[in-house]
Amino acid sequence: MPELRMDPIKERWVIIAVERARRPEDFQIPPEETRLHACPFCYGNEDKTPPEVFAIRPPDSPPDTSGWRVRVTPNKYPALRIEGDLVREGVGVFDRMSGIGAHEVVIENPDHNRSLADLSIEEIRDVLLAYRERIKDLRKDQRFRYVLVFKNHRSAAGASLSHSHSQIIATPVTPFIVIQELRAAQEHYLKKERCIFCDIIKQELVIGRRVVKADEDYLLWAPFASCFPFETWLFPLKHRHDFTLLADDELLVLARAMKEMLLRMKLVLNDPPYNFVLHTSPSLTPRPGKPQYWGTIEYDYHWHLELVPRLTKIAGFEWGTGFYINPTPPEVAAEELRKIEIEL
Amino acid sequence: MPELRMDPIKERWVIIAVERARRPEDFQIPPEETRLHACPFCYGNEDKTPPEVFAIRPPDSPPDTSGWRVRVTPNKYPALRIEGDLVREGVGVFDRMSGIGAHEVVIENPDHNRSLADLSIEEIRDVLLAYRERIKDLRKDQRFRYVLVFKNHRSAAGASLSHSHSQIIATPVTPFIVIQELRAAQEHYLKKERCIFCDIIKQELVIGRRVVKADEDYLLWAPFASCFPFETWLFPLKHRHDFTLLADDELLVLARAMKEMLLRMKLVLNDPPYNFVLHTSPSLTPRPGKPQYWGTIEYDYHWHLELVPRLTKIAGFEWGTGFYINPTPPEVAAEELRKIEIEL
Repeated sequence: MPELRMDPIKERWVIIAVERARRPEDFQIPPEETRLHACPFCYGNEDKTPPEVFAIRPPDSPPDTSGWRVRVTPNKYPALRIEGDLVREGVGVFDRMSGIGAHEVVIENPDHNRSLADLSIEEIRDVLLAYRERIKDLRKDQRFRYVLVFKNHRSAAGASLSHSHSQIIATPVTPFIVIQELRAAQEHYLKKERCIFCDIIKQELVIGRRVVKADEDYLLWAPFASCFPFETWLFPLKHRHDFTLLADDELLVLARAMKEMLLRMKLVLNDPPYNFVLHTSPSLTPRPGKPQYWGTIEYDYHWHLELVPRLTKIAGFEWGTGFYINPTPPEVAAEELRKIEIEL
Repeated sequence: MPELRMDPIKERWVIIAVERARRPEDFQIPPEETRLHACPFCYGNEDKTPPEVFAIRPPDSPPDTSGWRVRVTPNKYPALRIEGDLVREGVGVFDRMSGIGAHEVVIENPDHNRSLADLSIEEIRDVLLAYRERIKDLRKDQRFRYVLVFKNHRSAAGASLSHSHSQIIATPVTPFIVIQELRAAQEHYLKKERCIFCDIIKQELVIGRRVVKADEDYLLWAPFASCFPFETWLFPLKHRHDFTLLADDELLVLARAMKEMLLRMKLVLNDPPYNFVLHTSPSLTPRPGKPQYWGTIEYDYHWHLELVPRLTKIAGFEWGTGFYINPTPPEVAAEELRKIEIEL
């Protein structure tokens, strides 16, 4: 069982893989993929992953066979384990929890060589549908506080397999960057009775210099205080705290905006490694005996997507301070991302 | 002039290089070093850096000539600029400051091929002496709130030149991870009238499993909630909030402990890329009209050094949540780092 640990000074949780510990020699081994004979995410290799928990496939097609369009399975090497009780304990000045959680892989399409940016709008919609259904399902588990959807594209951004996939991790604590975001949004709302994200959207549409693309549904923009070159956020104009409230037809509209974002990124930066993270409401499933902090969340929080291409390295300064040095102003990034012509 | 910007949701500052913006094509260019004919940090190339601000050199040797043992110069491509006024302004919902600060390079020794771990204890002491003198000098500038000393070893950890060097950055705001640490230490002290670092040292010496090396002056240990495999912290047993209070002979004792840390790291992990960061008191220089938060800092804060080898990648999960997955428990890391024999 992995462990969650918190340092009383840093006040952030870390997942520690207590079993299967990687020792010095393990860091010399080439990444998994080079040792694989067959990609576990391709058709015909469904038995190389744990049994699927969700798939979009023809009605007559049985689970864990070929024919699927999107397939979600537990991660074979999960960071957190689904089985067991959530045990919390102190270890002197430190805190520890059992590493309960879920870690799933969303295989975005059967074709080994097509990345998310290459998929059709309908195919991207199917991926979003898988995200939505898995978040909703995982939130039913009272042990989980947050369900995070994210994607690592290419090995420099942390992907260990090249077949296009995203990941879902459900955690028994709300991660500290998420808490920071939720608190800042809540404080703004309590003071002004306005959503801070809606305020930002209004301001950025007027200023215009950081806008990559705006239509009646989405604002694609380079954030004012971007930490990384060409960091790009996708904000829905319609205020909603929770991504899972999107209906199927709304997911299709989002898929179009995402395709636009991914294609611009791919063309301008030559298919860069990137990470994206879906920022949405935490699990609001009532838990007996557990405090519920986010009373005004429907009004104060605003789901969105954040994408960072990985063109620079995170070094000592960033690690030691949380203070980033970004060599590309967002106004320049927006201009570059805006000026190319794309066809959807 | 670079800019400091803050996002009201993330609440962390970012340094944006407004001039000399890197555009998409600039990220395709190989790193600087491959284009250099001569290393600017080697003897004879003193004119390839800005004029030195500190050096340890023979008494008869003029500045910016060969013969030095340690040399500190302003960074040729600084993230922050020393000249100008500190201007603070709002930009709608956002915050902006002029990018005033200092960015210096500590060239640790003249030999291009010797890394910090290879230097003698006396040579490392000279590097520490340069750190101490530069921090003290930079703190006199009322515009600066924090002076950060850090090192990126090898290009995977962010070093752009291979000749061994550290960096010093003075910032006009206290970085948010530093604030977190200062606040947590202060809260602990206000509740218990004890230093949290001293409490941790006492506990870890008793438990012993995470101790790499302990003597009467320093505890070298793998922290309970390590974010990275083989993360290692060096804590002085003697409570002091400020690294610059160390006398010359105390720097020699620290140099010995650092050599021990760096050699163990190098031998066990095959000279890994790493970052280290010196955690010390912020600038306490009185500034008219500026609040002073850290009233009990002499009692509650405890300077120390944190080192992270860079064996794993920071991916979407870590970026989006501040939640790290560490595949090597600190107990295993400590065991591996402890068991090798080294001679100093």
